[in-house]
Amino acid sequence: MVRKEVEVGAPLGEFALIERFFRACGAARADVRLGVGDDAAVLVCPPDRNLVAALDTLVEGVHFPPGSPADSIGHRALAVNLSDLAAMGAEPAWALLGLTMPRAEEHWLAQFSHGLSALALEFGVALVGGDTTSGPLTVSLQLSGLIEPGTALTRAGGAAGEELFVSGSPGDAAAGLALEQARLALADEQTASYLRARFLYPTPRVALGRRLREFASACIDVSDGLFADADKLARASNCGAVLEYELLPVSRELVDAVGIERARELALTGGDDYELIFSVPRSRVSALLDALPPEQWAYRRIGALHNKRATIVVRAGSVIDFSHRGFDHFAERR
Amino acid sequence: MVRKEVEVGAPLGEFALIERFFRACGAARADVRLGVGDDAAVLVCPPDRNLVAALDTLVEGVHFPPGSPADSIGHRALAVNLSDLAAMGAEPAWALLGLTMPRAEEHWLAQFSHGLSALALEFGVALVGGDTTSGPLTVSLQLSGLIEPGTALTRAGGAAGEELFVSGSPGDAAAGLALEQARLALADEQTASYLRARFLYPTPRVALGRRLREFASACIDVSDGLFADADKLARASNCGAVLEYELLPVSRELVDAVGIERARELALTGGDDYELIFSVPRSRVSALLDALPPEQWAYRRIGALHNKRATIVVRAGSVIDFSHRGFDHFAERR
Repeated sequence: MVRKEVEVGAPLGEFALIERFFRACGAARADVRLGVGDDAAVLVCPPDRNLVAALDTLVEGVHFPPGSPADSIGHRALAVNLSDLAAMGAEPAWALLGLTMPRAEEHWLAQFSHGLSALALEFGVALVGGDTTSGPLTVSLQLSGLIEPGTALTRAGGAAGEELFVSGSPGDAAAGLALEQARLALADEQTASYLRARFLYPTPRVALGRRLREFASACIDVSDGLFADADKLARASNCGAVLEYELLPVSRELVDAVGIERARELALTGGDDYELIFSVPRSRVSALLDALPPEQWAYRRIGALHNKRATIVVRAGSVIDFSHRGFDHFAERR
Repeated sequence: MVRKEVEVGAPLGEFALIERFFRACGAARADVRLGVGDDAAVLVCPPDRNLVAALDTLVEGVHFPPGSPADSIGHRALAVNLSDLAAMGAEPAWALLGLTMPRAEEHWLAQFSHGLSALALEFGVALVGGDTTSGPLTVSLQLSGLIEPGTALTRAGGAAGEELFVSGSPGDAAAGLALEQARLALADEQTASYLRARFLYPTPRVALGRRLREFASACIDVSDGLFADADKLARASNCGAVLEYELLPVSRELVDAVGIERARELALTGGDDYELIFSVPRSRVSALLDALPPEQWAYRRIGALHNKRATIVVRAGSVIDFSHRGFDHFAERR
């Protein structure tokens, strides 16, 4: 036990920290009756909305390399939760932060809260409470959002025969992480910088998720890898997925960095993308394409759901062998 | 980075774990539209209620000794949040769990989820989501509750002249922790066992907090020590507190264990009590005592709020010197 007994109000103590860096973090919202600083927050949930709640944890050395920029850690802690809400079609509202860190460094905290606050402002999220504790660097963020009753997207609504889409260009974040860890080096600084940013500062697809409620039958965000997460959507929908290798969207930068073959492998297995995978009944596809032009909303068809339970990748008409199936904590290393 | 790429659905992987130990954890609630297993939970907040939200983190070696019973860790992760909601007068409803652990041990997880689930059932809380990750043992739990609009207790509603009360017998948990850490030894096993349980399995005062909305002007829960938390309530209410040493409630067991002087010191500074401190206007005191008989509801007057900013302890008419003022992460060790 490393508890420290101290004077109340000691300089840079827990209470001073909270006051300084987290009291005015993110958006000011009229529905926050009581925010940071009491035993709990009091929030007004509109009578015509349901609540949508997610919680994700980032651990140093597991979800980001030691020494990652503090503003990226703040950004990602919120982004991964925004991505969960995006996958439900919800509108983000309120966050609570559980921040565990070895010591309170002013510069680090300023950067961390800046990264968190900037993204929170962009998505209208208010930080309303939480807890700061000493310990190994770990960030748990809980995000609540609002949704019109009965309209939430889930993983379970898909059906065999429906088309499968993905947003953005998965695989970039995996290459960005490899660059951060010096497992990959690139001569072109602009390409490297783009890919790093895709890992460090992912963009959650909240607006797309909101609109997809009109068209999609099921949706999931890509955190553990496109293949693994497409498989989760398919299983929850009691079917499998057929992913077409040639259709996998990869960025020009990723192809420049690692070549087209490795790019598509990273797109399938990389993780940390925070894009959306969604299924759309064939009868709704043309309405989707009309309402949300793919070149503007940045998504692409990558395959379909089928009535076998297996998820497979097809290339030039053949099923390809595919061993890296994404990311799972705690299971045995293969 | 220690990420492990694994087969989807590998034995005791993250998804299997969640399924096995956390899908049916706590109470079944009709207001849970979608619980554990999707990207986020969907919850129905009644139109005539506000939402009350707290998040607390427990870190091994900081909030509990390494090797603590797993069911106690599960119990305490929820109890500390129930205590926050109790201090607001809210009715607990939904929890999200962020569980970070070095490895997935089946027995440990069974015990942990048992401790969490038993307390959740007792207070009608449903576990609706969260995240399990690998890393140093850390538990962040987010709890939401419901409250009638405009009735939440805060720390800020007190005023000079009001009387100050505390529930239960603070100090027991600090002695229980000392026993757990073998810093204290007792011949009497029954006394030791009572004190250990007060640390390992604290009882949040949810029913008392609900009723106090009729009488109290301000309320806070005791997590960092009675003195420190009374001072926080007083400061938030723009006044100070006068605590009367002779009035401090201490259990017979604590006095048997450490003597009356040390018992009162532990009551003031110990922490981990999860009792409630609350202020009541003099005009409401007799109504409080009538409606909630102290011998039945287990609380006692310990002093008053005064119009100086300092919080002091008075003994036989004199202010006593008092150096250990409670617990604050991160501030310099004195």
